[in-house]
Amino acid sequence: MKKRVVTLGEVLMRLTTATHERFEQSNTYRVHFGGTEANVSISLAQWNLGATHITSFPNHSIGKTACDYLKKSGVDTNNIKFNDGRMGLYFLENGVMQRSSKIIYDRFDSSFSKLNPTIFNWDEILKDVDWFHWTGITPAISESAAQLCLDALTSAQKLGITVSGDINYRRNLWQYGKSPLEIMPELISKTNVIVGGLTDFENCLDISANNFEEGCKKVQQKYTTVHTLSNTQREIISASQNKLSAILWRNNKYNISKTYTMENIVDRIGGGDAFMAGLIYGLMYKEEEDALEFAVASAVLKHGILGDANLVSVEEVEQLVQGDNIGRLLR
Amino acid sequence: MKKRVVTLGEVLMRLTTATHERFEQSNTYRVHFGGTEANVSISLAQWNLGATHITSFPNHSIGKTACDYLKKSGVDTNNIKFNDGRMGLYFLENGVMQRSSKIIYDRFDSSFSKLNPTIFNWDEILKDVDWFHWTGITPAISESAAQLCLDALTSAQKLGITVSGDINYRRNLWQYGKSPLEIMPELISKTNVIVGGLTDFENCLDISANNFEEGCKKVQQKYTTVHTLSNTQREIISASQNKLSAILWRNNKYNISKTYTMENIVDRIGGGDAFMAGLIYGLMYKEEEDALEFAVASAVLKHGILGDANLVSVEEVEQLVQGDNIGRLLR
Amino acid sequence: MKKRVVTLGEVLMRLTTATHERFEQSNTYRVHFGGTEANVSISLAQWNLGATHITSFPNHSIGKTACDYLKKSGVDTNNIKFNDGRMGLYFLENGVMQRSSKIIYDRFDSSFSKLNPTIFNWDEILKDVDWFHWTGITPAISESAAQLCLDALTSAQKLGITVSGDINYRRNLWQYGKSPLEIMPELISKTNVIVGGLTDFENCLDISANNFEEGCKKVQQKYTTVHTLSNTQREIISASQNKLSAILWRNNKYNISKTYTMENIVDRIGGGDAFMAGLIYGLMYKEEEDALEFAVASAVLKHGILGDANLVSVEEVEQLVQGDNIGRLLR
Amino acid sequence: MKKRVVTLGEVLMRLTTATHERFEQSNTYRVHFGGTEANVSISLAQWNLGATHITSFPNHSIGKTACDYLKKSGVDTNNIKFNDGRMGLYFLENGVMQRSSKIIYDRFDSSFSKLNPTIFNWDEILKDVDWFHWTGITPAISESAAQLCLDALTSAQKLGITVSGDINYRRNLWQYGKSPLEIMPELISKTNVIVGGLTDFENCLDISANNFEEGCKKVQQKYTTVHTLSNTQREIISASQNKLSAILWRNNKYNISKTYTMENIVDRIGGGDAFMAGLIYGLMYKEEEDALEFAVASAVLKHGILGDANLVSVEEVEQLVQGDNIGRLLR
Amino acid sequence: MKKRVVTLGEVLMRLTTATHERFEQSNTYRVHFGGTEANVSISLAQWNLGATHITSFPNHSIGKTACDYLKKSGVDTNNIKFNDGRMGLYFLENGVMQRSSKIIYDRFDSSFSKLNPTIFNWDEILKDVDWFHWTGITPAISESAAQLCLDALTSAQKLGITVSGDINYRRNLWQYGKSPLEIMPELISKTNVIVGGLTDFENCLDISANNFEEGCKKVQQKYTTVHTLSNTQREIISASQNKLSAILWRNNKYNISKTYTMENIVDRIGGGDAFMAGLIYGLMYKEEEDALEFAVASAVLKHGILGDANLVSVEEVEQLVQGDNIGRLLR
Amino acid sequence: MKKRVVTLGEVLMRLTTATHERFEQSNTYRVHFGGTEANVSISLAQWNLGATHITSFPNHSIGKTACDYLKKSGVDTNNIKFNDGRMGLYFLENGVMQRSSKIIYDRFDSSFSKLNPTIFNWDEILKDVDWFHWTGITPAISESAAQLCLDALTSAQKLGITVSGDINYRRNLWQYGKSPLEIMPELISKTNVIVGGLTDFENCLDISANNFEEGCKKVQQKYTTVHTLSNTQREIISASQNKLSAILWRNNKYNISKTYTMENIVDRIGGGDAFMAGLIYGLMYKEEEDALEFAVASAVLKHGILGDANLVSVEEVEQLVQGDNIGRLLR
Repeated sequence: MKKRVVTLGEVLMRLTTATHERFEQSNTYRVHFGGTEANVSISLAQWNLGATHITSFPNHSIGKTACDYLKKSGVDTNNIKFNDGRMGLYFLENGVMQRSSKIIYDRFDSSFSKLNPTIFNWDEILKDVDWFHWTGITPAISESAAQLCLDALTSAQKLGITVSGDINYRRNLWQYGKSPLEIMPELISKTNVIVGGLTDFENCLDISANNFEEGCKKVQQKYTTVHTLSNTQREIISASQNKLSAILWRNNKYNISKTYTMENIVDRIGGGDAFMAGLIYGLMYKEEEDALEFAVASAVLKHGILGDANLVSVEEVEQLVQGDNIGRLLR
Repeated sequence: MKKRVVTLGEVLMRLTTATHERFEQSNTYRVHFGGTEANVSISLAQWNLGATHITSFPNHSIGKTACDYLKKSGVDTNNIKFNDGRMGLYFLENGVMQRSSKIIYDRFDSSFSKLNPTIFNWDEILKDVDWFHWTGITPAISESAAQLCLDALTSAQKLGITVSGDINYRRNLWQYGKSPLEIMPELISKTNVIVGGLTDFENCLDISANNFEEGCKKVQQKYTTVHTLSNTQREIISASQNKLSAILWRNNKYNISKTYTMENIVDRIGGGDAFMAGLIYGLMYKEEEDALEFAVASAVLKHGILGDANLVSVEEVEQLVQGDNIGRLLR
Repeated sequence: MKKRVVTLGEVLMRLTTATHERFEQSNTYRVHFGGTEANVSISLAQWNLGATHITSFPNHSIGKTACDYLKKSGVDTNNIKFNDGRMGLYFLENGVMQRSSKIIYDRFDSSFSKLNPTIFNWDEILKDVDWFHWTGITPAISESAAQLCLDALTSAQKLGITVSGDINYRRNLWQYGKSPLEIMPELISKTNVIVGGLTDFENCLDISANNFEEGCKKVQQKYTTVHTLSNTQREIISASQNKLSAILWRNNKYNISKTYTMENIVDRIGGGDAFMAGLIYGLMYKEEEDALEFAVASAVLKHGILGDANLVSVEEVEQLVQGDNIGRLLR
Repeated sequence: MKKRVVTLGEVLMRLTTATHERFEQSNTYRVHFGGTEANVSISLAQWNLGATHITSFPNHSIGKTACDYLKKSGVDTNNIKFNDGRMGLYFLENGVMQRSSKIIYDRFDSSFSKLNPTIFNWDEILKDVDWFHWTGITPAISESAAQLCLDALTSAQKLGITVSGDINYRRNLWQYGKSPLEIMPELISKTNVIVGGLTDFENCLDISANNFEEGCKKVQQKYTTVHTLSNTQREIISASQNKLSAILWRNNKYNISKTYTMENIVDRIGGGDAFMAGLIYGLMYKEEEDALEFAVASAVLKHGILGDANLVSVEEVEQLVQGDNIGRLLR
Repeated sequence: MKKRVVTLGEVLMRLTTATHERFEQSNTYRVHFGGTEANVSISLAQWNLGATHITSFPNHSIGKTACDYLKKSGVDTNNIKFNDGRMGLYFLENGVMQRSSKIIYDRFDSSFSKLNPTIFNWDEILKDVDWFHWTGITPAISESAAQLCLDALTSAQKLGITVSGDINYRRNLWQYGKSPLEIMPELISKTNVIVGGLTDFENCLDISANNFEEGCKKVQQKYTTVHTLSNTQREIISASQNKLSAILWRNNKYNISKTYTMENIVDRIGGGDAFMAGLIYGLMYKEEEDALEFAVASAVLKHGILGDANLVSVEEVEQLVQGDNIGRLLR
Repeated sequence: MKKRVVTLGEVLMRLTTATHERFEQSNTYRVHFGGTEANVSISLAQWNLGATHITSFPNHSIGKTACDYLKKSGVDTNNIKFNDGRMGLYFLENGVMQRSSKIIYDRFDSSFSKLNPTIFNWDEILKDVDWFHWTGITPAISESAAQLCLDALTSAQKLGITVSGDINYRRNLWQYGKSPLEIMPELISKTNVIVGGLTDFENCLDISANNFEEGCKKVQQKYTTVHTLSNTQREIISASQNKLSAILWRNNKYNISKTYTMENIVDRIGGGDAFMAGLIYGLMYKEEEDALEFAVASAVLKHGILGDANLVSVEEVEQLVQGDNIGRLLR
């Protein structure tokens, strides 16, 4: 039987300028939808897991279109709510060469941020589920979103579901009057698998460390539920050329992945989510070193795909891990 | 010397689906900018008047792009402010055949709605200006926008500038706690030329009438500054086929324009603004019957042009009035 | 509880030339997917019924893409099979003015045509279903497809489900060695609601008649399960301008709908399917005259939408029936 | 054996703004190539005649591209020269509704205008040819082009080839120091079939008349080689809606064609050339009334096709003449 | 006088997804036409040789469009047949970064595969021809295509024409009941110039070797007509970055070309055909080392051009060989 | 107060083929406008200086569109003239990989080339201006353009304005009967800051040197007004990969900038103008080494932006100089 994963989080409409054009130049936008947690669900659905995403959309045609996109991607949308509020947006100008990519967010007062947290029956949603995934974006959006996240985690913990959280600290969110340090520790205390780096640990968990290994140990001391910590490492030569690797701390062991040179990058948005999805898949079905390699290879492939979602198959990821069929012409 | 006109109002980004596609289908949006008052300024700038638009934009690349658009259109943007808040948006699905056009507004909390009204020095802005134009959209947006409008009108009246107002009642605005009847009468009392219909009179001025002529008389009785009232009359056969005419009440005389059959309509947004601009231009330079005909012809041509702005010349409008060069091939 | 409808039939990839371009000119094709029965399912899913489509797709990325399209449209795809064979295609050049639309079919040896008919468990698929819909396209494709259709109808009849069939006679199909007269009568004998005209009756049922009413009576005499017959009537002035009405025979009563003038036609493919979907919806929820009007209005709206599917809401169809909000600007 | 036709004239690059966009708006141009005489050759080549076009192109990639376009269209390009000078251009904004189409020419100093007239061996080019076609554009371009035309006509007359000429008077050409009246009479005196109207007769032949019939008689009196005169008649309701018919004078008989109502016009450029091609084809293979009807129907179909060339088959034209298959869906 | 080359083989329609989009994402396809042998003809025609392609197309507008494409490219299409059957297709998703390119073929039952081999009079087609080129794709398609190939080779050998063959073994063709080893040896025995590698030799000629030199010697021992063998060598770093060189065995001498680093690859389809065309051109006009360098440089340039055809001039290829004008801005 | 810069020169319409397409393939062109001096003005306007451009445009819609483009870019266009003549054009095929970019110019007889030099009142235009910039393109266009340039320089010198000149020698201009050596020395003798290299010095100033330093000294000996000389140095690996650095000679000191590796180049047109603008800005506000670094970084960023203009901010250039935020994702 298919393993089942539930993710929770806001989905934004992304409006990208025409290829290589700046905001000042582009008279068309390409429409995509994405959200860091929904991106994870889409990857897992592509990989034939049962993936359910929990969110809300505004009750109009564009909200419906966003929901249709999740359906098309194989995600179960039966628990999604339609309510008041707007569709959160972001405008994207993809960088190239030495020029950075630029995002203008326009996500306040979204339908998701206004969601009544009591609307979901988490015990029912999470019944027979194997894994629950959240990120630090959700509690950063609004008080009700933070509550939503806490309710889900409480239920997941009660039901014995594995919980992963991508800390993903964003300074320009957290504008509703709470600081991350007031909210995140409780959420992390109900989480088993964490993706994050030293900055995340410091800002969200008040933990300082000199390196990732030390950071992991300190997190585990404080949060005993956490059994796995991981993070990607990106070296940026230019917007078009990056190097990517990742690290995993588990069972007191420190794993480092292969490093990939990525040239001709098409779209790096969603690279971290592709890693997260790869890690969840890997930890479910593989040994931990293989899980880590699967996760990094998944993230690498994402950089060659337009849009937030990582439209690749398990076979494609595994071939990259094994060094097969890289950049060929498959007939 | 060029006559000078000042307009005041919000500019929105308009995102239109691909030709004939519904929101559910379109994976690109065409970007335009427009605002009912800015559209008037653009028309007048195209017609070689000095046109200044007063508004604010968010202080980011997209705000700058919106401002560049006005510059390109010949509008003086030197008094435009850049401040906090978002860019107001609307999503447009252009109708065709029997199917209606559909707008999803997303304009709350915009930069313009948050403008501090004291930021503009109206006496300076309006120095040596011949005409000031406002619409009922502005006081419907926020309390500060309503104040802004009142300040401008007070200054204009003091300086003896002709003031036009397009009442343009929109039920789904007016959400900041005031009703139109609390705000609009004072604004109309400082206005000389009004565009509006019976619904507008009722909702904004508390004046009921059985026909336009009666309505005009009642408005003039109550608001003695108003010397001219006008409105367009649209008969809708389908989204692609409309008939358009207009009426003008002035000096106790009722003028009715020619009726145009418009087939193969491309984009009706901004048709009313094209009429308004035509009326301002006409009242400045022509007899009142000619002014009315100029205004309707201007509105008709707008229906054949993509985007909010009416990119036509005075010659093109006049040729349509005279029945010359309609639909030909001009080499 | 939602009513549930099951449809059966092939889905083709449609490749349309650029707007107004002939095959000789177009260097891009717009990709849509459509099939006469799947189009019905999509309409019904949009209208909030439970719609399940039964078909097969080739087991490759394009087959998956076609299936994703149905998912996105709200159709239940859980019973769809992936097997060998190719994706059936058609190339479309949309006509305009006096120039006809032109289709080049390329659908032989498709995955669907090679489907093993025993692969579906119809009793299970049709459990708790309210309506089953098929068309004369399916038995025209291949012997196995004809068998598939017969099996489905037999099960539907056994389970007491209402069955509708759109006869849809196509001369250039039926190439596998059987004639329509060998196959269609048995299928019609298990059907309750028929859409078709005199040519269909003659070619598929060997019934000649001088008019629709006479034809209906003769069909009912021979096929006693049939309680409802309907058809659209199209007058073609040009590819851009048609008139459309429809007729319905039921309970010995002959209903004629309003006639709509359709100008600026965007895409007439799927107009008949939009009618069929409207009729099914109408017969489920409305009186028969209203059902007919709903069906024609649904068909009219389809002509203004790109692609095979009729992306309109129940409200939009009903407003057209009532003459409300036709061709307006809905804010 | 295929009949063979030779045409002579300049080919221009046409740069058209995006659909419904004005020059001020469009940031892309669609590239087409066309020339009034080459358009005739292309039609005839599509209709399976042997069509040879004589012209010159600049000796660079864009000149080569223009020539490739003729090859693709089935025209024999073996006698085309590549020399110095630029590619003549025109910028086109297609009108819609009441707004006219607008052309900005940029054709001076073209490669064709600088052609050395002695470069062609007309006796060889015209060997075994059945028909030669020229227009009044060529002698209007430059002195050498006028000479080129005269040389071709002299050779054609000597070889007994039927010669057609489309007078096509254009005021804004004729800038090289000669007036039409100095040049055209000699050319017409070597021509057998003329397309033109009263303005053409007056400006190019110094013949005034009150109606077409009288004009024809006067032309024939003065130019005894002319045995056939024809012209189209266009009534313009808007850029999107025209009516079209045509007249033919031959053997002292005046024929008037059917009148077509053309709605939803896509592109009227090349309509006259489609008529001319139809007339040549018709006069070769049909009775004169049928020839005229064929020519008008050809012209009508052109209005529904993007670009200068009339990409329709003989069957499509004949079906329109017979009223068959107009605006249908041909599977 | 121009040298004349004849090529034989199927032409497919290629449908490519939008730049960097996967099949699941792309709602448009870019249309190109290509075939491994026709691509060679197009290159040679661009280089001013007389190039004739022999194939067949379906007898409909798309078949005609494919033929027009060859005409436009300068290829003589006079011997091409139009008959029954479909247009062979392939769908292409161009890879980027580590992601491979992916082809979905849909070419069975094509017009070409059903060609009656007796329809061509090879002695006439090959009269005064200098070179004939075929590939191993043709005999892999159908029994009649294999016969066609054999007939052509027999005639070419009789007429003393140089014959080149690109072995091009494709496992997923050869589905009509014959194995390559039953067919290819006879064809190779009538061939003088071979392009292929060790896998080709093994699968098609039953010759195993440890390296190319040994393979060449063994081929020549068995097939005494073969005087020249060549192959490209590709090192794949990613879909965007490859290295390319080539080897040539002739007169018992082994030549190795320069190695080119290719970054920012646009489209590698047709690279081998560009090499083949370069080799034919080179062997006709240059010394063998220069021929090899010309061929590789031709192949390199192809990787920067969209579509199957290598749209470059002899000068451009020679400049790359000489290291001139690489990647500059030529005014 | 803003510093004010005036630039003088022709603006061309640029027509670029679709991405990676050759002239033979592209059926659309992307429209940009640019001119080497206007590009400098646009950069400076983006950087918040007062920038005025002096030129002329043809008196039609496309000329107006070109002027609107400058307005939109923030350039003061009040002194631009509209007169007879055509819009100068160039066609661009952007290179990629080893394939060079290719320009086909079509700029003769432009509106600018025919400008009456006495039409401008330079003393008025240059009043309160800080810097005047010209290039060697202008005197190469026509005798009147050369005179225009001389008049401007004479006035600038008189008013004590800093003058920069980009020598920019182009062999294929200079077709009006004068050689650069007859014209350029006088212009250089009124210039203070020169951009150029050894070829420029030789062709325009008759100065030969073995290296840039020697060249600079010789130029300064002969032209005592010149206090600063600079040039970029480009190493071309392919059209997609270049290295860029620059040198500056001033106060007897030789500065060499960092060398940037540029991969994935989007559009190199305007790179030199971006350098020039950076140099002007740098010399106004920074020490000379910093000025040089600012100029090179400006040029590097240009290579990642479509179109002639360098749409980057001062902050973006400075971050590149400092190595901050290169190729990141800025939220």
